Amino acid sequence: MGRTSDARKKILEAAQSLIELRGYSALGVAEICKAAEVPKGSFYYFFESKEALALTVIDEHWAAERGEWNRILKGDAEPLQRLRQLFEATEAQHRAGREHRGSIAGCMLGNLSLEMCNQSEAVRDRLQEIFEAQVDMIEAVIVEALSRGEVTVDDTRESARAVVAQLEGQVLFAKLYNTTSPLGTLWANCLALLGGPTASVPAAN
Amino acid sequence: MGRTSDARKKILEAAQSLIELRGYSALGVAEICKAAEVPKGSFYYFFESKEALALTVIDEHWAAERGEWNRILKGDAEPLQRLRQLFEATEAQHRAGREHRGSIAGCMLGNLSLEMCNQSEAVRDRLQEIFEAQVDMIEAVIVEALSRGEVTVDDTRESARAVVAQLEGQVLFAKLYNTTSPLGTLWANCLALLGGPTASVPAAN
Repeated sequence: MGRTSDARKKILEAAQSLIELRGYSALGVAEICKAAEVPKGSFYYFFESKEALALTVIDEHWAAERGEWNRILKGDAEPLQRLRQLFEATEAQHRAGREHRGSIAGCMLGNLSLEMCNQSEAVRDRLQEIFEAQVDMIEAVIVEALSRGEVTVDDTRESARAVVAQLEGQVLFAKLYNTTSPLGTLWANCLALLGGPTASVPAAN
Repeated sequence: MGRTSDARKKILEAAQSLIELRGYSALGVAEICKAAEVPKGSFYYFFESKEALALTVIDEHWAAERGEWNRILKGDAEPLQRLRQLFEATEAQHRAGREHRGSIAGCMLGNLSLEMCNQSEAVRDRLQEIFEAQVDMIEAVIVEALSRGEVTVDDTRESARAVVAQLEGQVLFAKLYNTTSPLGTLWANCLALLGGPTASVPAAN
């Protein structure tokens, strides 16, 4: 029992780091098992297919990330400050990843969305659910900030989606340029998207 | 001569559509040649490697896209209207792609950034140059709009990058949800990012 749980954990850890490094398509089950130092039979004992493994990797990744998002976005700080903390935590996480690996792996959910959604309907569905959950969490903070008169948005849902889109876009740049500096703009851009207090004053129409 | 040029064109067309469909890593040279209906020897006559092919596919894709961006962004309309036209053209292009293929392929440059930049320094460099060129083109329009008092931005470069990041993020959602509707928000979000005339009025600080 101890051993088999250990094998599953090893497979998941190896898969997560290989997927972060090289994506999903380029990986084979044999390579994952070799990196995990488990026999290939173990793989099919725990996972029906490579797609089933990908779904589990996605779920575990999001469970950890959701925990972090909840900790920050449901924290005690004022609503907009919580968004700021989320961006700072995202930047710190990518900075640590870069120090550890030498390169920025990007957002695993964004990476797999672009790589896999047209290959696997199960992965597409799961990633849609996760991004909806992210938009839910951001929207809840925007609704709170709106009720305090701190932002001026017409559609809290679309504004939340724009904030997540900006995050994914800047993480793409962070990965491509292998620097966290694009992430330093997230807070100012978020305020602009939400018509927040320090956003630029619009010109007279 | 006629035949060889034809073979190169066939390989590029097959590669472009296979990369749009399934990404780069999952493809083999044999599969590309089969789809192109050319012998494998032809491939290595024209391309040194699969990476060299990817660079050519990227260059040809960007040459076409840059032509479209130039046509719109250097056109006669007022500066902000040119940005609006760019977003509308992007939406129309993805809608046409969806009708043709049944799924949204997303932005090839964004797809390959996330998939390949940590695999190939040559691809990373090329994609960085292309995104810098995109940011240049958007920035030129923002500078023009700023000189007319139509936007209020502190840093035209970072604002242009935020616009491109928002575009990449919303195209990611369009691909993931297989609908062009996220692209319908680009214009409003761009105005908000630039503090443009119809952006929400910020709350008093």
